[in-house]
Amino acid sequence: MTAYEIISAKRDRQTLSDDEIAFMINGFTAGRIPDYQFAALLMAIFLNGMTPVETKSLTEHMLYSGIVADLSTVPGIKVDKHSTGGVGDKVSIPLAAIVAAAGVPVPMISGRGLGHTGGTLDKLQSIPGFRIDYSIDEYKKKVALTGACLIGQTASIAPADKKIYALRDVTATVQSIPLITASIMSKKLAEGIDALVLDVKTGRGAFMQKIDDSRDLAKNLIAVGERFGKPTIAYITNMDQPLGRMIGNWLEIRESIDCLQDKGPADLMQVTHQLCGAMIYLGQKAVSIEAGIEISKLMVHSGKAWQKFIDIVRSQEGDSHVLEHPETYPRAKFQSELKADDSGYLSRLDALEFGLASVQLGAGRMQAADPVNPKAGIELHYKIGAKVEQGQVLATLFSDDEEALNRALDRLSKAVGYAASPLAAPPLLIEMLDKNSL
Amino acid sequence: MTAYEIISAKRDRQTLSDDEIAFMINGFTAGRIPDYQFAALLMAIFLNGMTPVETKSLTEHMLYSGIVADLSTVPGIKVDKHSTGGVGDKVSIPLAAIVAAAGVPVPMISGRGLGHTGGTLDKLQSIPGFRIDYSIDEYKKKVALTGACLIGQTASIAPADKKIYALRDVTATVQSIPLITASIMSKKLAEGIDALVLDVKTGRGAFMQKIDDSRDLAKNLIAVGERFGKPTIAYITNMDQPLGRMIGNWLEIRESIDCLQDKGPADLMQVTHQLCGAMIYLGQKAVSIEAGIEISKLMVHSGKAWQKFIDIVRSQEGDSHVLEHPETYPRAKFQSELKADDSGYLSRLDALEFGLASVQLGAGRMQAADPVNPKAGIELHYKIGAKVEQGQVLATLFSDDEEALNRALDRLSKAVGYAASPLAAPPLLIEMLDKNSL
Repeated sequence: MTAYEIISAKRDRQTLSDDEIAFMINGFTAGRIPDYQFAALLMAIFLNGMTPVETKSLTEHMLYSGIVADLSTVPGIKVDKHSTGGVGDKVSIPLAAIVAAAGVPVPMISGRGLGHTGGTLDKLQSIPGFRIDYSIDEYKKKVALTGACLIGQTASIAPADKKIYALRDVTATVQSIPLITASIMSKKLAEGIDALVLDVKTGRGAFMQKIDDSRDLAKNLIAVGERFGKPTIAYITNMDQPLGRMIGNWLEIRESIDCLQDKGPADLMQVTHQLCGAMIYLGQKAVSIEAGIEISKLMVHSGKAWQKFIDIVRSQEGDSHVLEHPETYPRAKFQSELKADDSGYLSRLDALEFGLASVQLGAGRMQAADPVNPKAGIELHYKIGAKVEQGQVLATLFSDDEEALNRALDRLSKAVGYAASPLAAPPLLIEMLDKNSL
Repeated sequence: MTAYEIISAKRDRQTLSDDEIAFMINGFTAGRIPDYQFAALLMAIFLNGMTPVETKSLTEHMLYSGIVADLSTVPGIKVDKHSTGGVGDKVSIPLAAIVAAAGVPVPMISGRGLGHTGGTLDKLQSIPGFRIDYSIDEYKKKVALTGACLIGQTASIAPADKKIYALRDVTATVQSIPLITASIMSKKLAEGIDALVLDVKTGRGAFMQKIDDSRDLAKNLIAVGERFGKPTIAYITNMDQPLGRMIGNWLEIRESIDCLQDKGPADLMQVTHQLCGAMIYLGQKAVSIEAGIEISKLMVHSGKAWQKFIDIVRSQEGDSHVLEHPETYPRAKFQSELKADDSGYLSRLDALEFGLASVQLGAGRMQAADPVNPKAGIELHYKIGAKVEQGQVLATLFSDDEEALNRALDRLSKAVGYAASPLAAPPLLIEMLDKNSL
């Protein structure tokens, strides 16, 4: 077996065997197979695809390139959620607290923001003292004690994915459904989960802009989850406009607090309760997703989820005082207002452009090594469907860089559309898929 | 413009602009674009193809990555021939002498053997003293003085091709028609030619085994030649069985001598005269290809081609004594006979297997750095269609390695087929193509 033969086989649309996939993943991770050969394989996979069986093998060998957290001694059915990423998508933060409050342990290994999408780790780290660098042993203890632990990907989790992702990123092979599936699932399966809920975003601010691609990705993710014996439910949700009203690291923690205090915006609450409902159901604390949603709402109304969030933050050494007194958090040096250019009904708030503007303001990064500013971001005052008058303030922008504020304002003035007659916001929950959808 | 965007465009089946192709070729040759990005581009080109305009751009930027010999001060229309490579294909050697004898200058930059196909340089270097490492200036002088000069690719000729070929070789992207076309044509155009004749082999021992692929390659080569203003004629010739009777470096020089002394085997003489005829026609020393063929035959019958060969070898510091007394050349240490397993009409002499057997004997190389043995090889006593009796000697094998002789005999016993009734050899000249075929 040689790398050359395996590249040739995929080039010629043949199905790779489990052994061949193992040979490539192990060889590349160990440095025996050079990056130029793996790059050729990635492009052949991108263009010729992979079968579900190949995708499962790919996931498995990427997963076992590192350690898999063993949470079998933690009581309960451990359930995590993964989102393919969006703008203003802070759902993981209130969700972890709600689901843990409902008695379902949440082991969560998250990522950082890149490009126009934010990352849960960056948001959590805007809380002073909050640590995300625990060892797998400490993570396991915290899941057992607090019911949830949110950490970053350690070097021991799916190292093959880290190396492959870096190569995909420079060889234009990121947007491949089997490669995305294996990347996501190898990391999720390493967490020690028993079941998984997926939020596959679709639309302007999503990784996959077309509904068919999003559905295809959802099915691939479910297929791999189920092949590993992990019940998996996926929702396809709209990401044409930002989710909620806040974009930016601390701003999204503030909105998560609102959410946990039952004051969150309707769209954010809807997605959060739906995903929590599915997790509580998979965690066998509810007989149906609908019953799970009721429990989720109860956890918020009762204050139990809020208390759980305080517990999680304290467990991860974060400053809980600032959560209870968010007005004490330092503000960005500069702020500016995005005003309506026209009168009418808001018909477009382009999520991609809002995401890119938040990066300009300092809230995100274009390169993995860039720093982020916890205070930077955007607060939206209206969402699609709202009636506005010319000159009315649509959003407030925050940054420590005055020049960047102007550039972001300029970008956003082109990201807003107006309609003459009333219109409804696009449906948020587009569809639910599970193993019966395959 | 970034490498990432250009890779993405080819991945998405877009047509690359001349500037984009220049950016990639120049960047890769200069080391600014890493091999993993170029490997991804190569696989995207392999799978998504290139238009004739893109292929011309690719050729042009590979050509101008190095120097182009300027033979404009050499009188006459300079014409070369290129073969896509086969087994026993020594045509270039008698051809250069015949065409030069007819008054058409032949500037020829050749390659070494790799895999089952032999290389003109290895054959020429079996002549003691023969030099192939002249500078472009010396090469130009020799073309002017002798009418032909056969050298190797210097570092200054199409360095982009050298670097790209090495990467194609390890990323399973060799067999791509636009990439092959640009590789061949960038080197041929660098020779300083005015016109070109191509011998595109097809069949078992050819680079392209299928006639449709060979025809496609021929058309691509002609299209690029014509776009550069160089009249180009291509022949598709059969390579199911070895050409002529000799395979191996010195053995093929011996057969070239036979050929120039009008004692060559019929198949080899037919291909040689056809290609020479086309070159003499393109060199405007004949009014038609047919008239060129007559001149070619006359050059051989008259002894002028043989004398020209002696002149070329002396001009390149080779020992011409050994050509006039080939019986004085040292023999391989061991020889062995391949005997017929069966009686009947020879129906198969698998060119690929004969080529691989000759590599085993030491006549060729599997890796570019391997040495070759000038004395090793195979002499065929019969060709397809001959009637043979069981036990009759079909071929004699020569090697300095007794073990290798046995392995090669073993391989060849499976490479021969017998039919009960008489049959004709496959047609040798399959078709002729020129710009009117596009």
